[in-house]
Amino acid sequence: MLTMQDALARLTSYWADQGCLVVQPMNTEVGAGTLNPATFLRVLGPEPWRVVYAEPSVRPDDSRYGENPNRLQTHTQLQVILKPDPGHPQELYLGSLAALGIDVAAHDVRFVEDNWASPALGAWGLGWEVWLDGLEITQFTYFQQAGGLNLDPVSVEITYGIERIIMALQDKNHFKDIEYGPGISYGEVFGQPEYEMSRYYLDDADVTANRQLLELYAAEAQRLIDAGLPVPAHTYVLKCSQAFNVLDARGAVSTADRAAEFGRMRRLAGDVAKLWVARRDELGHPLGRVSPPALATARDAPAARDGSRLLVFEIGTEELPPAECRAAAEAVEKELTSGLAGTRLAHGEVRVFVTPRRVVAVVADVAAREDDHVRTVRGPKVAQAYGADGAPTKALEGFLRGQGATPGEATEAEFNGVRHVVLKRHEAGGAAAGVLAPVLAKVVTGLRAAKNMRWSDPQLSYSRPIRWLTALWGDDVVPVAVGLLAAGRTTRVLRTAAEPELEIASAETFMETLAVNGIVADPEDRRELIVTGAQDLVYPEGRVDVRGESALIDQITHLVEAPTPLLGTFDESYLSLPDAVLTTVMRKHQRYLPVRDAGGALLPMFVTVANGPVDVELVRAGNEAVLRARYEDAAFFYRADRATDVAELRGRLERLTFTDKLGSMADRADRIAALALSLAASLGLSSATLTRAAKLVKFDQGAQLVTEMTSLAGVMARDYALHAGEPRDVAQAVHEAELPRHTGDDLPSSVPGALLSLADRLDLVAGLAATVGLPTGSSDPFAVRRAVLGLLAVHRAHPALAALSLTDGLRRAAARQPVPVSGDVLAACADFLARRLEQTLAEEGNPIDRVRAVLPHADRPAVAANLLTQLASVTANPDFVAVAEAVQRARRIVPAGTPAGYDAGILKEPAEVALHAAVTAVAAELGPSPEPDLFRFTGIVARLVAPLATFFDEVFVMADDAALRAARLGLLATVRDLGAGLLDWPELQLR
Amino acid sequence: MLTMQDALARLTSYWADQGCLVVQPMNTEVGAGTLNPATFLRVLGPEPWRVVYAEPSVRPDDSRYGENPNRLQTHTQLQVILKPDPGHPQELYLGSLAALGIDVAAHDVRFVEDNWASPALGAWGLGWEVWLDGLEITQFTYFQQAGGLNLDPVSVEITYGIERIIMALQDKNHFKDIEYGPGISYGEVFGQPEYEMSRYYLDDADVTANRQLLELYAAEAQRLIDAGLPVPAHTYVLKCSQAFNVLDARGAVSTADRAAEFGRMRRLAGDVAKLWVARRDELGHPLGRVSPPALATARDAPAARDGSRLLVFEIGTEELPPAECRAAAEAVEKELTSGLAGTRLAHGEVRVFVTPRRVVAVVADVAAREDDHVRTVRGPKVAQAYGADGAPTKALEGFLRGQGATPGEATEAEFNGVRHVVLKRHEAGGAAAGVLAPVLAKVVTGLRAAKNMRWSDPQLSYSRPIRWLTALWGDDVVPVAVGLLAAGRTTRVLRTAAEPELEIASAETFMETLAVNGIVADPEDRRELIVTGAQDLVYPEGRVDVRGESALIDQITHLVEAPTPLLGTFDESYLSLPDAVLTTVMRKHQRYLPVRDAGGALLPMFVTVANGPVDVELVRAGNEAVLRARYEDAAFFYRADRATDVAELRGRLERLTFTDKLGSMADRADRIAALALSLAASLGLSSATLTRAAKLVKFDQGAQLVTEMTSLAGVMARDYALHAGEPRDVAQAVHEAELPRHTGDDLPSSVPGALLSLADRLDLVAGLAATVGLPTGSSDPFAVRRAVLGLLAVHRAHPALAALSLTDGLRRAAARQPVPVSGDVLAACADFLARRLEQTLAEEGNPIDRVRAVLPHADRPAVAANLLTQLASVTANPDFVAVAEAVQRARRIVPAGTPAGYDAGILKEPAEVALHAAVTAVAAELGPSPEPDLFRFTGIVARLVAPLATFFDEVFVMADDAALRAARLGLLATVRDLGAGLLDWPELQLR
Repeated sequence: MLTMQDALARLTSYWADQGCLVVQPMNTEVGAGTLNPATFLRVLGPEPWRVVYAEPSVRPDDSRYGENPNRLQTHTQLQVILKPDPGHPQELYLGSLAALGIDVAAHDVRFVEDNWASPALGAWGLGWEVWLDGLEITQFTYFQQAGGLNLDPVSVEITYGIERIIMALQDKNHFKDIEYGPGISYGEVFGQPEYEMSRYYLDDADVTANRQLLELYAAEAQRLIDAGLPVPAHTYVLKCSQAFNVLDARGAVSTADRAAEFGRMRRLAGDVAKLWVARRDELGHPLGRVSPPALATARDAPAARDGSRLLVFEIGTEELPPAECRAAAEAVEKELTSGLAGTRLAHGEVRVFVTPRRVVAVVADVAAREDDHVRTVRGPKVAQAYGADGAPTKALEGFLRGQGATPGEATEAEFNGVRHVVLKRHEAGGAAAGVLAPVLAKVVTGLRAAKNMRWSDPQLSYSRPIRWLTALWGDDVVPVAVGLLAAGRTTRVLRTAAEPELEIASAETFMETLAVNGIVADPEDRRELIVTGAQDLVYPEGRVDVRGESALIDQITHLVEAPTPLLGTFDESYLSLPDAVLTTVMRKHQRYLPVRDAGGALLPMFVTVANGPVDVELVRAGNEAVLRARYEDAAFFYRADRATDVAELRGRLERLTFTDKLGSMADRADRIAALALSLAASLGLSSATLTRAAKLVKFDQGAQLVTEMTSLAGVMARDYALHAGEPRDVAQAVHEAELPRHTGDDLPSSVPGALLSLADRLDLVAGLAATVGLPTGSSDPFAVRRAVLGLLAVHRAHPALAALSLTDGLRRAAARQPVPVSGDVLAACADFLARRLEQTLAEEGNPIDRVRAVLPHADRPAVAANLLTQLASVTANPDFVAVAEAVQRARRIVPAGTPAGYDAGILKEPAEVALHAAVTAVAAELGPSPEPDLFRFTGIVARLVAPLATFFDEVFVMADDAALRAARLGLLATVRDLGAGLLDWPELQLR
Repeated sequence: MLTMQDALARLTSYWADQGCLVVQPMNTEVGAGTLNPATFLRVLGPEPWRVVYAEPSVRPDDSRYGENPNRLQTHTQLQVILKPDPGHPQELYLGSLAALGIDVAAHDVRFVEDNWASPALGAWGLGWEVWLDGLEITQFTYFQQAGGLNLDPVSVEITYGIERIIMALQDKNHFKDIEYGPGISYGEVFGQPEYEMSRYYLDDADVTANRQLLELYAAEAQRLIDAGLPVPAHTYVLKCSQAFNVLDARGAVSTADRAAEFGRMRRLAGDVAKLWVARRDELGHPLGRVSPPALATARDAPAARDGSRLLVFEIGTEELPPAECRAAAEAVEKELTSGLAGTRLAHGEVRVFVTPRRVVAVVADVAAREDDHVRTVRGPKVAQAYGADGAPTKALEGFLRGQGATPGEATEAEFNGVRHVVLKRHEAGGAAAGVLAPVLAKVVTGLRAAKNMRWSDPQLSYSRPIRWLTALWGDDVVPVAVGLLAAGRTTRVLRTAAEPELEIASAETFMETLAVNGIVADPEDRRELIVTGAQDLVYPEGRVDVRGESALIDQITHLVEAPTPLLGTFDESYLSLPDAVLTTVMRKHQRYLPVRDAGGALLPMFVTVANGPVDVELVRAGNEAVLRARYEDAAFFYRADRATDVAELRGRLERLTFTDKLGSMADRADRIAALALSLAASLGLSSATLTRAAKLVKFDQGAQLVTEMTSLAGVMARDYALHAGEPRDVAQAVHEAELPRHTGDDLPSSVPGALLSLADRLDLVAGLAATVGLPTGSSDPFAVRRAVLGLLAVHRAHPALAALSLTDGLRRAAARQPVPVSGDVLAACADFLARRLEQTLAEEGNPIDRVRAVLPHADRPAVAANLLTQLASVTANPDFVAVAEAVQRARRIVPAGTPAGYDAGILKEPAEVALHAAVTAVAAELGPSPEPDLFRFTGIVARLVAPLATFFDEVFVMADDAALRAARLGLLATVRDLGAGLLDWPELQLR
């Protein structure tokens, strides 16, 4: 059996063989290998660096007294830095797994999007978690920034979680059972330290002392920065970080502290980074400078050809995030289509396929050459081209000289009615390869993702590195060159294939080659394989809810190139955990498809989709072990949470920051509670249930299981509240306070739940609008848009809340914020809500004119929605249409600002007198501010239809007599205002 | 080339193969691998433990900005713990060198006594430095105590200094040039941190902050001890240690601080250790318990033999300290001789030889059997043995029964004049093997050294482990068994021999076998080989001062078994360093013999003595490199010291502790200065030279070179003072203040130097007597005896100081101590000095009676010595003898307490009247307190000879008449007191 110490030695030796220096861990406590100066400082600046080291990583917050099977206050990382990016770091990494004896072809090794950021270090990067049969064993990151500085060259960071890997390889269920050395278990060696350090971090560390340490460390760091000594300064920044983590684990970090400390650490780390860079410059870069890589040169253009051939263009990438795959395909299709349109190359259909590792564009029937072409070049006007003697003027001569033409070639043509001298230039079309190359190059350089990164390529920036290009027109390579990449005829298939790189003879055989090698390029095909494969596996006992799991299936589709669905099972005993816990683990953490019986009850099984022709039994067993560990973890937390008093859980919210300026989660829960009670009082909806539920709202965010899986917030609240003996309706209301969590989610069914839900969202909007601002563009870190959509949905769902004004609610929420919320901000919030309502209603399929017509009621979305429903009916009623048209017509005729009053005595024509009488009666019946009820409104105003028709037929409003004209306009203004406030009448499109 | 990272990997892998766990370095700064809990805690208690780890060891005081080629604030240790002692740890260790590619047979690998103690950790052990061609590469220690607790089982600690080993293997002269990884130097990787951390430790660390850190850490350690958590408590003890070291490097530790901090750390470490042991007990010793090793069983006794054969008994040890070798040989000879005397085994001469690895006793002609023997067993008195009827009484019957004898066997014999029944028992002598076995066993168990240790043997304790026994009488193994060892016929020769273990056929071939294998068992032979070998090597240019280097040669003799003298050279440029620096490095650090030309000037060469048949060129080159590095170091310090102001060097004494209670070295220097000036004033010897020299006294102890080589104190003072422009006589006096440093050393030649030297030693004696007490037994940690001998020698050497009273000097010294010095203590000091004087004078060959006779002048040793010289003459003068005898006779006759006065008018006999007249005249001439001049005294008292003779012949002192008797006794009392105060007359033995 490979012991843990052997594993460390083998990995170290492997990376040393790859040119990495082997150094020692940091001799002060660090939370991760990244903090070791061998990473944090060395990734800065232009010097090359390759290093490997083990790093005991201390996470005081992960202290569990050694009881939790998978969580330790100190775990062992093996850290690798490759600077610059060597171009094939994933392949090197897979080699390291092989060095551990892992058969990467038999196992399911996947690179699953995971981006990394450390705000306290001013550092971030893009990359993946590496999964081994569903187990996260490595963090793989392309560092983009550290200490707030852009990194150039970019470093690759590979961080192995050794205990996890070993538990998997040794098939152990508890870290204590790991065989650390021959015949000696991890628990035997590290069990006591694990317990005692947990005691220290969780119970015994002196808060005052650690706070003093933090201050002393920070002051020393600052002094050393001032003294120009980045190395010792960095050591003290690390000590700051550890002291802070100790305080945090002891629950002694207030919201204000946290914000201040993160700010201070970020600033210190940034200063250290700048200082290091400056010192290395002064020292003349002792390790040298990374030389800029040589740009690729395009191949020579192929010989001339005839006929049409298929064009295949493959952009090979490292694993793209699933969410980027579709966008990549669309972008390539659009850019390629428009690029081709800019040429005169005849071609057929453009199709684009995408997998995590490639975007493939296939264009049918691309002609060998562009059509030939006559181009008309406009010269001077004829009138100015020839002198009186008919001889060419200087202007014409200049033009001809410029075009290299003789006067004899000149002809004439008319432009906008003026005759000009023109030249007809016959131009031969370009050969396909030459024409296509710049088009394809632009497709590559134009790729952009939501979040882009740099790697070794000096010219490209994208979601993940682009590593190869395959470009074939028929048998020929299209000579594309971009950055470091020159297109060729070599594609790459699965990394674990016997031949991972293949030469392609011609474009026509490309897709077949991929298919033969197991790669299903078309996402639709992959989805189908996944769905049918999964259903086959679980038939007949179970089924996968394809519609319900649609988003997950989409994600899986873009996690694999060669889908291999596998069925796994888990112990039935875990079914005693809440359904949501089980499925959240499966979906969010593992991307497993849950399996249910005909009645919808979960079965103790799951479907996972491996990539490629793995050893099914091995991968199944691995995934089952991972799920077991996850469930064991969850069960551990679940038991611990249930054993904890609800009040204590609620108390823990003090330790959770909401935002720097908006206080702790406890502060926020307090605000929500008060706001919900205040709204209820204003609506006469107060209840004992609400009062109690408000006291508990969000208490489960203090539970360990929710800390682990935030999406379980609310669900666990209900479970734990019931377990604690709270009344069912209180538990339900606390749960419903979190609803809806996303579009299409359940809405609160109870009024107390709805009030809490609304209060939650009103508090969020008011607070964030006043501090970080409302979301703009694609940035919405606090998911304010989603909250607002929920807010609207809840309001619409509860008739009892229809009277609730959202602007009033926002005002009440604003009054409770720890920061001032100005009138302008509140107005912006109201507008933001109205825009979201408009958008929602439109997306529900309502005609936009009607949506806009009801928007005056945006403050009460339930009312607006109701009116919209009514509009669908009444717009089919000729009476309503006639009146509405009359209202609109009156608006057009009556100058803006004309009041609705008039002297009825001046009216004389029968039609206008009749209209006056009818309008007066109708207005009286409608009352001064009519209810928002279009059916009643239509019923009442129906009797105006005839008088209005007659009036418009017979009366000329704009009479010469000013008084008469004024009276008639006043009458029409009264008509105009009949439905004022009910709808935004001009928006309605009636025919 | 073996890179440093490869070396670490290879050693780690080697020890892992020996069953060591591989763990990570400590993630808080430690000064040595010993502090890592994987050593400090794990060596405690009964659990087995084997571990290997690299440990970056931080020594703030060793900071040199990366400029010193051999000294770093952080160096890399590789630490190995073997618990329990596996029985052959040295052999395992040699295997590790082989794993590094070191050919241990070609190189000179030696184990050189070096004991280790960490008072701050309450830890100590015995062991060695391991030398590779003269370079200390490893510390090898048998841990005896940690945290104040005795260790059982004992652990073996092996600590490699990796940078040193690598510099040697890679032939580098500066640590920065080490090839750390392929193509990357140590300096490139660690140069900047080395500089910056040096800056921090030496210049930039905030003293106040670090003092606060120290307090916080200590408080946290104490809290955690109180909470019963040894692991985090230990971490905080380590942090204390680092904070203390930082303060120390910054020169911010006062004497009081140092004593207090060491005390606190020792107490905390002790508490941690106790707590750890208790917790492991509670946990039931998760790693199990070391099982007690099985004791050896003696072989069966051999068959009966005839004739006499040689006896050889070899006690095989790990390398004994040179100072223990002679003692071991003597002890074995004594014990064996007396043991044999307790048997009836005829034998010849007993000879004992000793090398570092064995004590060999050879006994000639040991008989095959003891002589037969008749033993007389005494029974009851005859009177009680037989009844009236002549029949045996019950008493006799009981005796016979007890002896298994019949009445017929009984005879009679007389004891003290009483007749008893006796039995004559004829007893056959025992066979040699059986008789010898317990004798030899007792030789082994009786071995004791000045400092003894335990190892894996449950029954033995000695200077170093005893690993094998060879015991042969002729062809037979003597069946000795002691502890884990059963004697056999296998001996061990050089560890690097092709066959390191050899079977010996018979005792007669034993010594030859050793000799054939290069082992020179007889120390005299080895000494001769070394001396002649060395002289041959340096002939004809140079010579080794065999007499001057006698002590060193003795030491070398006991450092090797197979002496191989080698000549090495060094660069002539180093000859510009002071002679004392060069020779101190050679002798003390390297055990090299210096080589001088005919004029006594050092030549740039040295002789070292390797052990065994090494590769001479390789070993020479290695030793030369070591010496070069040492000289480079010394030159570095020498330049740095010379560049430092004398006043600044003197100022550094503030940072050096003398003792906890007696203040810093600066305090002591101040006291010495004041005392010397005060003594000079009292003697009228004040001078400008003394005044200036007193200001400087001991200033060179603040110099780096003296810190490195304390024996250079004084020598460097003169050098640096002259360099700083001090007058020659001042520089000389400061130098002479340190003289004499040992028996036979130079004495101060100048009066200022002598006064300072006396003041130094008076201060030492008075202060230590009042605090730690005067030395008793063998314990004399401050070398007070040596100081007193110097004090006496200096006093005797300077006639100008003859008038100086040592008790007066002690009183003056006492008055300046920071602690009270009682009258009793002063009296004890005076007595101590007198005893040392007595001993010295006796050791110089003076008859003890005369020595004792002059002891009344011990307070002025010069006077005492002078009187002793005079005594040698005057005791040959009949006049002196006659007077002295008269004085003694008078003492015998006159009752004690009789005053010297008398009424002369009562005297009537002519003889007494004549004596009265003569005595009166002589007394008048001698004066009331005669000078200490025996020649003058004799000249004056000579005229008493005749009157005295007549008086004793003719006068009966004890006359019946009381008044007359009183007058005669008074006259004799006057004679008695003639030389009072001059000598202790009764001590003199005159014939």
